[in-house]
Amino acid sequence: MDDVLQQLARVLEARRDADPETSYVAGLYARGTEAILRKVGEEATEVVIAGLAGEGDEALVHEVADLWFHTLVLMVHRGLEPERVLAELARRMGQSGIEEKAARR
Amino acid sequence: MDDVLQQLARVLEARRDADPETSYVAGLYARGTEAILRKVGEEATEVVIAGLAGEGDEALVHEVADLWFHTLVLMVHRGLEPERVLAELARRMGQSGIEEKAARR
Amino acid sequence: MDDVLQQLARVLEARRDADPETSYVAGLYARGTEAILRKVGEEATEVVIAGLAGEGDEALVHEVADLWFHTLVLMVHRGLEPERVLAELARRMGQSGIEEKAARR
Amino acid sequence: MDDVLQQLARVLEARRDADPETSYVAGLYARGTEAILRKVGEEATEVVIAGLAGEGDEALVHEVADLWFHTLVLMVHRGLEPERVLAELARRMGQSGIEEKAARR
Repeated sequence: MDDVLQQLARVLEARRDADPETSYVAGLYARGTEAILRKVGEEATEVVIAGLAGEGDEALVHEVADLWFHTLVLMVHRGLEPERVLAELARRMGQSGIEEKAARR
Repeated sequence: MDDVLQQLARVLEARRDADPETSYVAGLYARGTEAILRKVGEEATEVVIAGLAGEGDEALVHEVADLWFHTLVLMVHRGLEPERVLAELARRMGQSGIEEKAARR
Repeated sequence: MDDVLQQLARVLEARRDADPETSYVAGLYARGTEAILRKVGEEATEVVIAGLAGEGDEALVHEVADLWFHTLVLMVHRGLEPERVLAELARRMGQSGIEEKAARR
Repeated sequence: MDDVLQQLARVLEARRDADPETSYVAGLYARGTEAILRKVGEEATEVVIAGLAGEGDEALVHEVADLWFHTLVLMVHRGLEPERVLAELARRMGQSGIEEKAARR
């Protein structure tokens, strides 16, 4: 199922050659890192709102998908494989059940 | 590498029964939705900063992992399977190569 | 000089009766609290970006003005006088030179 | 009530010479722009949460004050007078009743 993320990454990579006029993602690449980060910030705010506004589960799933989508766009724009994020998450799981996070803080 | 997200979700679900005093994640659950959303907002800001501050790829991967991690905590806290986010992302890919997003806006 | 905030608050209050089709602020009121909060989140991200992107002082001043503007819209939409924010800031100054904040955390 | 922001700015400027160990604000200056921007992002998320979570007016006023406070810290850290933000807001008011904002977008 993580394959979805890999497949999506491949699609996002292919969009590098697309026309910014007709492709939403190619348009983001063309506008650069700041434009992509702006979207990451916006979508995070949407998640916070959907998490509190009582709009239901579907809205929350939708906003989390938007947020992950734009972080993937960011990774691809920076030439980073999303597998690296999964590897980092796997690494944390291996450390006494993600509790390393508490120790790190 | 496969199924890291699912495995992580299972770990996060198991943390529901952990001691909030010793488990970072159980502590977040105990503090509730607002505390988790606060972390989502914080980690999104970290991604924006890491994306601009020239701290290098590793820092960016780390912050994106933090952001995904806390959105997963949010999903689990709300009783939602992370597979639903992947299904939503897969659905978008199926729609003429994610360009549905442009149309939706 | 704080008079600017009060004057702006009066203008924003007067916009309650304006046409949402032609007034940006009336449009925000009509779309409600979530729409206004979305703008607060967006503008905060803009401040973070402007603070790091090396766009110069003018861009940062502009984004902070945008952020304050939308928090004022939020206050007015909720029927709150912006003077209350100033009173809260004044209260903190009176407490051993704002260092109460450190103690509070 | 007048000039709270200016007085606060003077206090924040004076904190530049304070001990980062004992002064919250001096500690922020010492940690630098990224640390201050992190706080701006956090406090904006708090405003969004307070705006939706039904915590009441006092909580919202408190969070808006926190947000303004940290944007003032940012301005002072960058050597910018907060009066510049007020001047920008005044300028907008002068432009056909802030509706210039709509036109700008």
